[in-house]
Parts: sequence; C-alpha cells; structure tokens
Amino acid sequence: MRNIKLTIAYDGTNYHGFQVQARTKEPTIQGVLEERLTLLTKEEVKITGAGRTDAGVHARGQVVNFHTSANIPIQRFVQAVNSVMPVDIVALQAIEVPEDFHARFSAIGKVYSYTIYYSKIPSVFERYFSYQIPYHLDIDNMKKAAGFLIGEHDFSSFRASGSEVKSSIRKIERIDIDYHNPIIKLTFEADGFLYNMVRIITGTLIEIGRGKIAPEELKDIIAACDRDKAGPTAPAKGLCLEQVIYYADKF
Amino acid sequence: MRNIKLTIAYDGTNYHGFQVQARTKEPTIQGVLEERLTLLTKEEVKITGAGRTDAGVHARGQVVNFHTSANIPIQRFVQAVNSVMPVDIVALQAIEVPEDFHARFSAIGKVYSYTIYYSKIPSVFERYFSYQIPYHLDIDNMKKAAGFLIGEHDFSSFRASGSEVKSSIRKIERIDIDYHNPIIKLTFEADGFLYNMVRIITGTLIEIGRGKIAPEELKDIIAACDRDKAGPTAPAKGLCLEQVIYYADKF
Repeated sequence: MRNIKLTIAYDGTNYHGFQVQARTKEPTIQGVLEERLTLLTKEEVKITGAGRTDAGVHARGQVVNFHTSANIPIQRFVQAVNSVMPVDIVALQAIEVPEDFHARFSAIGKVYSYTIYYSKIPSVFERYFSYQIPYHLDIDNMKKAAGFLIGEHDFSSFRASGSEVKSSIRKIERIDIDYHNPIIKLTFEADGFLYNMVRIITGTLIEIGRGKIAPEELKDIIAACDRDKAGPTAPAKGLCLEQVIYYADKF
Repeated sequence: MRNIKLTIAYDGTNYHGFQVQARTKEPTIQGVLEERLTLLTKEEVKITGAGRTDAGVHARGQVVNFHTSANIPIQRFVQAVNSVMPVDIVALQAIEVPEDFHARFSAIGKVYSYTIYYSKIPSVFERYFSYQIPYHLDIDNMKKAAGFLIGEHDFSSFRASGSEVKSSIRKIERIDIDYHNPIIKLTFEADGFLYNMVRIITGTLIEIGRGKIAPEELKDIIAACDRDKAGPTAPAKGLCLEQVIYYADKF
C-alpha cells in the first residue's frame, strides 16, 4: 500500500470541525475527505489528520495521510483529488511518503495564525476569516506580553477541557504580531498546541491589548496553571492552521 | 431634506446585482439598502447608486446618495447604518453633501479591479472574489495590449447589449496589471464604463495573455466597434467597484 501525504487548505465556515463526530451528522473535513477519496480511489479510505481543527477554523496547510493501492500517478494526484472536492476544500500538494509516516505523530511542529480585523467598521470580505475588534488595542503591550510565552512552559492555563492529551508542557518557538491596517495577524509556532491553546492565548493577549490585564501579569497567569486565570477563548473564525512541520530530510 | 452620500462595500455573491429588478424577487443591494435605511430612518428611503454592478460583482467603494429628514448626527451615521445591515453589506463613510449631489451624475470617474487567481490549484479563500486561470498567461503581452486602450476611444467592441446609454466614447486613464503570485490584479480607471466593459476588456486581455490574440490586434478590435471581435466576458465574481471619483473640492 502506498502512503500518501496530502497538504490541504479549507474554508472551515461550513464544517463541524475537522474530525468525524460520532454524535452528529453535520459535515466534517475528515468525513468529506474520506468520502471523496473513497470515490476517487474506489477503496475505502481512512485518513489521519495532523491537527483536529474546531468548527469554523480554517487551514492553509493542514496535512493528512492515508494508505491506498490506487495507482494514480503522484504528479497527477492533486488534480485528481481536486476534481472530486467541494469548492471549500482543496488539495495543495501530494507526495508519497514512507510507510511509517503519520500525519499527527510524525509532526514536529505546527504554525497557526490568528487574524484580527482591527476596525470600527466590519469587513464584508474578511467576515468569515477574522475576528473584528472595534476598540483600541495597545499592540506594543501585546508584543511585550507575548514574549513571556516563548519557550517551554506548562500551558495548562491556556487549555480547554475536553482533550485526552496528558502532558500540558509545550514549547512555543515564536509569536509574531504584525499589524498592517486594518489587519493584526498573530502567528504562533510551537512543537504542538493544547486544545484551544491558540484561541485562549489570543483572547488573553486581546485583554492585555485593551488594558484589562497588564503585560507582566501574563507570567503569573502561566504559573497559575489555571484556565480561569487566562482570558476568554477568541472566536474560531479568526484561526487558521498555516503549516505542519516535519523533518524536511525525512519526508 | 439632508442629502447623504454613503460609501459602501459589499460581497455581491448572494445578490442579484445592485439595482432593484422589477421582474425578480431575488435580493439586490439597492433593495436591501432601501429596506434597511427605511427601517433606520422611519421614512421611505430611495437611493441612487453610482454604479449598477451586476449579480456576483463586489464593491469596496460603491457610492450611493439619498435624501432624508432623519436627524441622526452625521458622525454616527455609519455606525447606525451598520447596526441594521446584513453581514455582506457595510457602510464605510457617510457625509452630508449639497442638495444637487447625485451619486451617478456627479461622478467624474470610477475605478474597478479585476482579480485573476493565476494557479493550477483553486483557492478556497478567494473563490468568490477571483477568476481562476490554470493555464499560462504572458503578462507582458497583456500589459502591452492594455496600453492601446488608454485614452479616449469608442469602446463599442467592449460593450454588452442591454444598456440605454447613448455614447460609447469613454476615456480610460489607466490600466494597471500587477502580479503578486498567485494573484493578477487588473485596475481600471476611466471617466465611466459601458455595460460589461471591464469584464469584456479583461476577457480580451486574457485571450491575449494566452496567445490567442496578438497584442497589436487589439488596435483593430477597438477600431472595429464590433462586440463580436473582442474576447469573452470574464466572470462577474472577479470584478470589484473600488472607487467612485468626484470633484474632491466640491464633495
């Protein structure tokens, strides 16, 4: 069996998240992918995704893998997949990888972005892909606070309940905050993220930006290991899985 | 009565164009604006739009005007309008203008953009706001050809039937073609545009880009004053009304 690594982008607006849900019949990215890949390969396809994005969360570089014996040439795979996909999911790249490649377990890092539409006036074009903030934000204070999050920490304060992962220690490589009027884009790179971690960090940085929390308080919030000490969870629609990182030399 | 000049943006995807249609009950930008402004001002509002964009065409800077005796302070007008608008129409600016200002007749120019998504792979995020071209385009030839269109010409070859306007002479000030992979953005500024003129010019420039028409042939196509000589009409979704130009000192 071939092992195919597929990089995909999707507009998550109309999906009930990435993962197939036992309890609901609402469409999920995984469900649609499996259904369409099964159609394409004429084999029952089960996919593994690198990140289980929530309902309304988007992706520009989600990675999935699946095993197949279909003999579609790899250089035609992207086009073949896109010929059966709905308009809001698209394959960007397909490569054949070693048998033991696993989209989630082989990943050594992920990059997420969070887009704030920083304006009193809503955007019609960005409305599904950003979170509008109509009030003043002190971006310098947000950047200062973000610095305290860099490195290896126990991020329990920024973790929603409902995840089965045991360790809450993660290493954040970088948090970039770029402001190009009217967009503030926060980019997070880490070896991995806890459930809702990017959205809770973003919600907390927004509270800092609006002056409700001082930048230095973030150190105490991290140390508390208590979800209640952090800010609210920022809305899903601003979040986008930009990239999944693997050992470049291996895969 | 106050005369209000309102600059608006809209995502035209779900509208049957700007203008209220007698024959259909599908929503139009004008229809929704009049309905919501009537709700806001508690007076029956009739608006005049600068450009009658077609179904699926977007706007980042459409201008409308209307008369009202509502005493909403002008500095709160945008917020008040946006509080009653659907998510795909937004007010950007409201100013009070002299009685004789007319959104269409007072305009001395317009700027439209046309967005080509130049990639073999479709875009999930730009799918409603661009026209995907998966084949090679010679952008230098498109720029060369665009040069022949600059200035005052009879643009009958680039005019769809169904418009009541008499003169087909227009003056194109500029056509900028900017390529930032994977987006090719064409920007057109003229004193006015004939019905479907930007889309037909774009469709013709695409034919030139793909080598079906030589750049120099465009001179003959203009001179022919015959719609059949030009290329196809590019799809509506790539088109956006960017700006309506007025005498800055007057309004």
